[in-house]
Amino acid sequence: MSMSDLTTRNDGPAGAGPLGAGGPRSERTRRAILHAARETFAAKGYEQTTIRAVAARAGIDASMVMRYFGSKAGLFTAAATVNLAALDLAAIPPRERGERFVRHFVSNWEDDLSQDSAAFLMRTAVTDQTVAAQLQETFNQQILGPVSALGEQDAASRSALIGSQLLGLALCRYILRLEPLASLPIEEVVPPVARTVQHYLTQPLPSDEQM
Amino acid sequence: MSMSDLTTRNDGPAGAGPLGAGGPRSERTRRAILHAARETFAAKGYEQTTIRAVAARAGIDASMVMRYFGSKAGLFTAAATVNLAALDLAAIPPRERGERFVRHFVSNWEDDLSQDSAAFLMRTAVTDQTVAAQLQETFNQQILGPVSALGEQDAASRSALIGSQLLGLALCRYILRLEPLASLPIEEVVPPVARTVQHYLTQPLPSDEQM
Repeated sequence: MSMSDLTTRNDGPAGAGPLGAGGPRSERTRRAILHAARETFAAKGYEQTTIRAVAARAGIDASMVMRYFGSKAGLFTAAATVNLAALDLAAIPPRERGERFVRHFVSNWEDDLSQDSAAFLMRTAVTDQTVAAQLQETFNQQILGPVSALGEQDAASRSALIGSQLLGLALCRYILRLEPLASLPIEEVVPPVARTVQHYLTQPLPSDEQM
Repeated sequence: MSMSDLTTRNDGPAGAGPLGAGGPRSERTRRAILHAARETFAAKGYEQTTIRAVAARAGIDASMVMRYFGSKAGLFTAAATVNLAALDLAAIPPRERGERFVRHFVSNWEDDLSQDSAAFLMRTAVTDQTVAAQLQETFNQQILGPVSALGEQDAASRSALIGSQLLGLALCRYILRLEPLASLPIEEVVPPVARTVQHYLTQPLPSDEQM
């Protein structure tokens, strides 16, 4: 998917779970539940989604959903997250960081364009505090963390600008599917966006300059 | 608000309306209906919103809503739009275009941060085709049109990149309210984003270059 690739997997209690652990069969069940959860959260929003409704859509008993995810909050966290490790920007030559950072996200987004899971996080995030907090945490982990680790001045402002460009790209290309962006070859999109991110990483910001 | 300032007012039949025209009293009624409509569309989405529900929230009769806006589609268009003329980029000195373009949108967004009307367009847009089409039309009118009028090569790709940055800014700052972007002084946000838009307007794109 897309937006949910911005989030990180929780392999703790909200992950496969202490009871749900096991072979490929439990993994299949887990995936079926997550798929049903994304559809249900996207259609109804966070507040109006029930464990019962997700279970019905997945064709299993509600107790199974609880066994795998523990609670509605745990189910939401798992549905909103995939396994995407934060990029270690400091290990990348400075001049390549913008491009590598952009490709880190875009390659995940392009791999899995399932629009319902993309829309699900966005739709719930714009109306629900719990979900907005989840996106904030993802931003902190995926963008603010790596940028801050570089030890540059204004890491917070630089991260904010980078986040606005990357989330805007995901929103327009994968979720709203605005044209012409949705149809442009990705190799025409990555270089100019990478240049922008490189600028946000390295250029003086207004707070450094004489305004 | 924010996202809805990206759209343009329809002063035709879906505007004040041939029957609803009149003095300040009918304008007050019109505003009350639009306010109720934004809240209702945001809470229920486009499909599940009814004229009756909007009327009830506004405390008036459903026939009044029909009299002012003609149909649910007309009501939606009016609720999603404000009076924002497209910027005439060609009339602006080339080196100032990025900054003027960014300020054109940001000054509207900063003026009216009502989050429910911001969230309303975004939430419905990510799940509803009608609304996505409305946003596409707004993009065409506010970004693609002015950029194409400059007569530069690759106007469509340039507009797409500009749109991704501007919509990402609106999304992160006004709708998701991601920190630190939501709290940064706007004078720290505009210059770097303006530089990006200026680059998207003027720099060679990959399609021009040896890849």
